[in-house]
Amino acid sequence: MSVTVVGSIAFDAINTPFGERERALGGSAVHFSLAASFFTEVRPVGPVGDDFGPDEYAVLERHGVVTSDIEHVEGGQTFFWSGKYEWDLNTAHTLDTQLNVFGDFEPKLSDASRDSDLLFLANIQPDLQRDVRAQCAAQLAALDSMNFWIESARDSLIQTIAGVDMVLMNDAELRMLTEEPNLVKAATAVRAMGPRVVIAKQGEYGAALFTEDGFFALPAYPLETVRDPTGAGDSFAGGLMGYLDSQGGGLDDATLRRAMTYGSTLASFWVEEFGCERAERLTREEIDERYEHFKRITAIDSVPTTG
Amino acid sequence: MSVTVVGSIAFDAINTPFGERERALGGSAVHFSLAASFFTEVRPVGPVGDDFGPDEYAVLERHGVVTSDIEHVEGGQTFFWSGKYEWDLNTAHTLDTQLNVFGDFEPKLSDASRDSDLLFLANIQPDLQRDVRAQCAAQLAALDSMNFWIESARDSLIQTIAGVDMVLMNDAELRMLTEEPNLVKAATAVRAMGPRVVIAKQGEYGAALFTEDGFFALPAYPLETVRDPTGAGDSFAGGLMGYLDSQGGGLDDATLRRAMTYGSTLASFWVEEFGCERAERLTREEIDERYEHFKRITAIDSVPTTG
Repeated sequence: MSVTVVGSIAFDAINTPFGERERALGGSAVHFSLAASFFTEVRPVGPVGDDFGPDEYAVLERHGVVTSDIEHVEGGQTFFWSGKYEWDLNTAHTLDTQLNVFGDFEPKLSDASRDSDLLFLANIQPDLQRDVRAQCAAQLAALDSMNFWIESARDSLIQTIAGVDMVLMNDAELRMLTEEPNLVKAATAVRAMGPRVVIAKQGEYGAALFTEDGFFALPAYPLETVRDPTGAGDSFAGGLMGYLDSQGGGLDDATLRRAMTYGSTLASFWVEEFGCERAERLTREEIDERYEHFKRITAIDSVPTTG
Repeated sequence: MSVTVVGSIAFDAINTPFGERERALGGSAVHFSLAASFFTEVRPVGPVGDDFGPDEYAVLERHGVVTSDIEHVEGGQTFFWSGKYEWDLNTAHTLDTQLNVFGDFEPKLSDASRDSDLLFLANIQPDLQRDVRAQCAAQLAALDSMNFWIESARDSLIQTIAGVDMVLMNDAELRMLTEEPNLVKAATAVRAMGPRVVIAKQGEYGAALFTEDGFFALPAYPLETVRDPTGAGDSFAGGLMGYLDSQGGGLDDATLRRAMTYGSTLASFWVEEFGCERAERLTREEIDERYEHFKRITAIDSVPTTG
């Protein structure tokens, strides 16, 4: 089994109340890939420029990420984003966006990446997402999107949503897309567009799952130290899809609940440090330990243990 | 066992996108009492005016609420609040507040209400809360507060917090009180002021528990129909304290987890209709049924059932 992800590969300049980085490895496909790499083989598809060198490839390859579908654009520069977070870390203010090679990105999947079992369409232009979906034989496709595309390419996004099995979006964006303030109704409306599964990301409050069979709600893992929320949503998606792939890609509710918990566990590590720095020294053992703790702190009926 | 609650008794004019009421029975002590009445004997303490008549007493008495500590102020008018909610129901805009008899409220507890086992200090001026705490022999005292008192009576509030066992406040207000954006750290800081237990209310996202022994997070019960959030926090507190009282008032984590789940269950019924209208025809059987469903939809490892 393997997962293909199509999205951005970037350098991020990040400023939070807890520090800053001038040039952190980032982008949705990178965060997703590193998180998924703890569970399965993952193939990021996206463009990079001449400034993306051996050091960056090495970060991915140390985690077993297959980098052969990363497209090197001769003479180009890698996508660059600069942002600053407020004191409560909830809002990112974009200071600068340089699309660079990402501006002309026309995803072309290799034979291997077409043959992946699972496909994740990270937050890119919905026409491109649909084009990639058409190229890929994956048994299960999921997508993320954002307010920018809801405003500028709503019809295309709805068409793209119709072609995937699962939607992972922020709760505010599900409400915006459906013009429905009630989240349960908004998720039902998105499921009516086609996908069997809708997962609402709720940031520091967790995530909620909506399927034909029911509902599941997961709070976020409590953290005393949050330094940088960049990549939280993508690492959540990576952990979730990576776990699903490791379980054969089934979308039954019991597997989805565990997958969401793994996704939230990955995201909780991500935000403890800048960019994907925490991921670089993360182990599967740490992930499983926190996963087990997660179960204890959300169990209504079990006696809690310390910590 | 019994619970005494000191807070407002009010008439509310409520406007939400789903309708309006000119004169709904409300106030923190009323919402709390009706919710707690499903579990134990409850004694609201608070002032009313001549406009608070047999119909209003009857609503409380039908639920077994002991009304003998409600103070009738001859020639006065009952506290009146008028508010309007935005489309997402998250923000209440106060249109009018008439304190009336509540403006001169000096709580005096009867012998019976002094002897209650549990005491809830609803959101009133912190000096008054402290005065009531001193009058009452309760083995367990809890309080709620709000941004208004944090801004206008911060030192008094902190002194009051030092004298109670449990604090129930909105997460934003815990952050504001402690000037600590991280919720885990904010809760730790409030526990350092004295209380053994801090519960952060998170509105549509649920609630989180902080004790010496650990942490528990509970999402909110998912609802397709939310008509009026007025009283959600007070019915949460009432269900929680009522259940704690029915269990002997212990503050161990296992009991607190179940109490929070009952509190959230009560709040979920409350917001489905205006004011306390849903409470009037609510049954313990419906509460227990939803409580069991709540456990199923938050269990990471159990197979979900439909609905």
